[in-house]
Amino acid sequence: MKKNRIAIVGYGNIGKAVLEAVKASPDFEVAGVVRRSLDNVPAELLNIPVVTSIDDLDSVDVALLCTPTRKVPEYATEILAKGIHTVDSYDIHSEIWNLRQTLMPISLQNNAVAIISAGWDPGADSVVRALMQVMAPKGITYTNFGPGMSMGHTVAVKAVNGVRKALSMTIPLGTGIHRRMVYVEMEEGANKDQILHDIKTDPYFVHDETHVLFVDDVDALQDMGHGVHMVRKGVSGTTQNQLFEYNMKINNPALTAQIMVACARACLRLTPGAYTMIEVPVIELLPGDKETLICSLV
Amino acid sequence: MKKNRIAIVGYGNIGKAVLEAVKASPDFEVAGVVRRSLDNVPAELLNIPVVTSIDDLDSVDVALLCTPTRKVPEYATEILAKGIHTVDSYDIHSEIWNLRQTLMPISLQNNAVAIISAGWDPGADSVVRALMQVMAPKGITYTNFGPGMSMGHTVAVKAVNGVRKALSMTIPLGTGIHRRMVYVEMEEGANKDQILHDIKTDPYFVHDETHVLFVDDVDALQDMGHGVHMVRKGVSGTTQNQLFEYNMKINNPALTAQIMVACARACLRLTPGAYTMIEVPVIELLPGDKETLICSLV
Repeated sequence: MKKNRIAIVGYGNIGKAVLEAVKASPDFEVAGVVRRSLDNVPAELLNIPVVTSIDDLDSVDVALLCTPTRKVPEYATEILAKGIHTVDSYDIHSEIWNLRQTLMPISLQNNAVAIISAGWDPGADSVVRALMQVMAPKGITYTNFGPGMSMGHTVAVKAVNGVRKALSMTIPLGTGIHRRMVYVEMEEGANKDQILHDIKTDPYFVHDETHVLFVDDVDALQDMGHGVHMVRKGVSGTTQNQLFEYNMKINNPALTAQIMVACARACLRLTPGAYTMIEVPVIELLPGDKETLICSLV
Repeated sequence: MKKNRIAIVGYGNIGKAVLEAVKASPDFEVAGVVRRSLDNVPAELLNIPVVTSIDDLDSVDVALLCTPTRKVPEYATEILAKGIHTVDSYDIHSEIWNLRQTLMPISLQNNAVAIISAGWDPGADSVVRALMQVMAPKGITYTNFGPGMSMGHTVAVKAVNGVRKALSMTIPLGTGIHRRMVYVEMEEGANKDQILHDIKTDPYFVHDETHVLFVDDVDALQDMGHGVHMVRKGVSGTTQNQLFEYNMKINNPALTAQIMVACARACLRLTPGAYTMIEVPVIELLPGDKETLICSLV
């Protein structure tokens, strides 16, 4: 079977996990990795083309954008314009609709598919959230995250003066309320009280219960596990007290990467346009033929 | 806003719940109810057209098939041939693919959409099962049902000689293994040992741990609650031990009906053909515009 070819754009935690997921998939192979620099190529890339421009890779079907999230709109625009499908895990919830609107005309003009915000949240969780609302249209859904590292909050702490390294853990307290446990490795001579003040007044933390702990070695605390506990209590028709719950405990980059590879598959099957995951039939994310999938899963 | 019109075909537990779900929906109204007989019309149908043929109802957009499951292929075929969309909750897992193949050409020829097996399992559970396989392609999913009444098993017990009324409860023991708790109201003079033997050797029960209890009043035990506990432990890329879990505790006919009404909505938006729920984008099941749904759910 001819394998479809994936370009990995960006090679941080997600890019590394995408490489593993592509290799483990039955229907894709790696066309190459696009990085800002060709220095310090890690050992696992020695037999894979590493380039600074996607134009230097042969016959790419889908580009998986593993760049920092804020770079996604720029890369997606550029790559879709070449007629190459894109998948990203853009995670700024308030901007997802705008990204879809931006990429829609570019996808249509270039006969390409963009699947955006294709991670676990936004992404697979969005599908479960939508399905829960289908099943009980009246009611409240709470999405509780963690325990796990929050990238956004960690970056915000790292930007504080006097912080050398940081880790912000998200702890679920239920009903969508979260505690922030912040671990800080200070720079020498930094002012603890000032760091404390700067973190607690930062917009990322000001509304949440936040605890700051000063530690000697932040690296020793890091683990890439994360979790979700989603609950909905609602009404089906006129029947109250319908109860739904979804839990997962996962390795964060590994799950994000696996979902992105699944969405790459859907890119090859959908009509041109920009999609979020709730717009994609789940069957299009799976390898294999429809008969087998329907017989085993429905 | 003009409401789309639904015909309810069959008026048992599911039909009654569909009536409530249609009335509670923002975008549908009831065109009428199709029954085998016009006798004994219940009070809640007094202001609704009740007919013995769907031809006697005005401008039906979608027919929701609330008949016994074995009657679904016949009714779906007949109604799709009139160019009316159909939704059913056909639940014989081993026959779902065949039903889809049977209804596909009829749907296409008559410019209609059929959504089949649109209940909670098969149906919404199928979407979650497929999504879990997307997230961890290697691994095992266990779907545990109950505690709740099994329609199929209850019907099997009722068919046993000497049984007046029966109830078979499905009790989840984990890893997809179920205990059957069977409550039997005997006919006078019936032989307990014979009933016990007939139930325990019935194909529905022979492979499961089955307990038969003789009671004076089966009706007093009946409740329409049911549950699902689905778990998957699998591999994303090369990362082991990814853990997923989905639970619900629900009123069975109310949830089935709500999902059927949601699928009626999708019928109006999809291109002609026969679909299972894993082939339908979840967003098409929800009322409202895409921008609002994407902003609130993704």
